[in-house]
Amino acid sequence: MSHRLDSESRIQEDDHLALKLWLRLLTCTNMVESVLRQKLRQSYQSTLPRFDLLAQLDRHPEKLTMGEISSLMMVSGGNVTGLVKQMETEGLVSRTPMKTDRRAYLVGLTAKGKRHFDDMAGEHEQWIIDLFAEMGHDQQESVMDALQALKNSVARSSEMAVE
Amino acid sequence: MSHRLDSESRIQEDDHLALKLWLRLLTCTNMVESVLRQKLRQSYQSTLPRFDLLAQLDRHPEKLTMGEISSLMMVSGGNVTGLVKQMETEGLVSRTPMKTDRRAYLVGLTAKGKRHFDDMAGEHEQWIIDLFAEMGHDQQESVMDALQALKNSVARSSEMAVE
Repeated sequence: MSHRLDSESRIQEDDHLALKLWLRLLTCTNMVESVLRQKLRQSYQSTLPRFDLLAQLDRHPEKLTMGEISSLMMVSGGNVTGLVKQMETEGLVSRTPMKTDRRAYLVGLTAKGKRHFDDMAGEHEQWIIDLFAEMGHDQQESVMDALQALKNSVARSSEMAVE
Repeated sequence: MSHRLDSESRIQEDDHLALKLWLRLLTCTNMVESVLRQKLRQSYQSTLPRFDLLAQLDRHPEKLTMGEISSLMMVSGGNVTGLVKQMETEGLVSRTPMKTDRRAYLVGLTAKGKRHFDDMAGEHEQWIIDLFAEMGHDQQESVMDALQALKNSVARSSEMAVE
């Protein structure tokens, strides 16, 4: 495991609880992402942005524009246009010109892409279940609730920033 | 707020709780990072990697090698060598050749860099306190504990992967 994962040590004792919590949240996200990147590479010679892209297409069988894909991606580190072209070459995704604007196109999963994603998704879920195993079900439920409160709080703060 | 932040909608109803929790964790981290990036830009014409780099140097007054800085950085999107050179030009950090290897050097905060960081850090902490305000103190404590369990679980899983 990389030394990067010890970065929570940045925390000073007199820091406010919310700051400690934010740095722990960031550390945990980095740690889980790091394990997932490693496992996707070892098991599928794949990457997190590739998996994320397939997951978004699987979730949207109506197909997506490049802009929609960029908006939906949850992980950084992937050039979406390059990813789509590469995965089209591999036969995992297809591009269809849009009727309204033939310079634009819709991206969807091919049958091969769908099979590839389903293979990975099952294992990916099992990795997550294992990684979170030390948190009991009740603890997981209560973190879900707490993070919903955080989402609400952040959304409200962002709305105020836009005003 | 960017559409990217709605990416938790990838969750399907039949997904396991742990997977939902992971996607919510990732969504929350992305949302908070996005707000912090925006506020650092608006208030300081700065970026999250710049702030992160200053924070690591502030935490390590003994100075750091480039390798140590790379390991400690908590956010992606910054080329560390480029960042350090830029911030040296701005007088925020200093580079000192190492006695043992004059091609390598140690990076530290200048007095100007320290003042700049202290300014930002106070406001940064207040942003975090505001963002997390909807979670009560007890809820924050319990999420801290739950995330410690997650850290333990991930660390154990990574050790097994290395064996």
